[in-house]
Amino acid sequence: MNQSELAAFYRAYIDCLNRRDWDLLGRFVHPDVSHNGRRIGLAGYRTMLERDHHEIPDLRFSIEILAVDPPRVASRLAFDCTPVGTFLGLPVDGRRIRFAENVFYELREGTIVDVRSILDKAAIELQLATTAPPGAAEPIPGETETLRR
Amino acid sequence: MNQSELAAFYRAYIDCLNRRDWDLLGRFVHPDVSHNGRRIGLAGYRTMLERDHHEIPDLRFSIEILAVDPPRVASRLAFDCTPVGTFLGLPVDGRRIRFAENVFYELREGTIVDVRSILDKAAIELQLATTAPPGAAEPIPGETETLRR
Repeated sequence: MNQSELAAFYRAYIDCLNRRDWDLLGRFVHPDVSHNGRRIGLAGYRTMLERDHHEIPDLRFSIEILAVDPPRVASRLAFDCTPVGTFLGLPVDGRRIRFAENVFYELREGTIVDVRSILDKAAIELQLATTAPPGAAEPIPGETETLRR
Repeated sequence: MNQSELAAFYRAYIDCLNRRDWDLLGRFVHPDVSHNGRRIGLAGYRTMLERDHHEIPDLRFSIEILAVDPPRVASRLAFDCTPVGTFLGLPVDGRRIRFAENVFYELREGTIVDVRSILDKAAIELQLATTAPPGAAEPIPGETETLRR
């Protein structure tokens, strides 16, 4: 794939994740894929993604920065979501968090074979330290701090 | 800069950091540089790097993965170092840690103007949970666990 083809491939991959179209995952992910040094394979990759979506029902991947240098893609993904329980070992418990993931992909035979991802855990910790504790009342629509300002 | 020029520029920037040649930093970093959304400027950037080297006397930047897509560079940097005290809020206290940084740079007018970096804090936490506590005896050279195996 040349640079523009690889960019289109990556955007289609992210779209596949956002549609949760797991049956299509094999078009994008290599059977022998590794994630952060662990060879989990396509089935393990699908399990990981399904678990992520289970823990974060409103999970959505948004590309914020993209650098395409075949056979590599680097992407900064932005998340704005509400994990239901513990996430990365942190008691998020339904609070809304925003954070980024900086991730590198390497392709082989037209699919992603290696992923090196880092999630911004420190940013989440900072938000949890400054947001309302779990169980706080839901804001009334139209009456939130943000809208009153 | 084209792709190969930008790759050479980035390698020269990392070399500048490893030589701690702060007087040369302005050749690589824009006067109005931002780091993770905060506009700190060249002087603030230098202060940040000097503080990093003070907290981590054996700090060394090694490029593990590079994706160059002008005007953007994405780099996975590998670190193998011994922060003397607290690092990222964690009590490292002279233990040896290995971790990665996934970082995006954007250039303007031939210098780095925007940096979006994430350090793998979770990897450091995992290592601190499984390594000897601070104050443990130094291994005798040639007599470490690794060498005996």
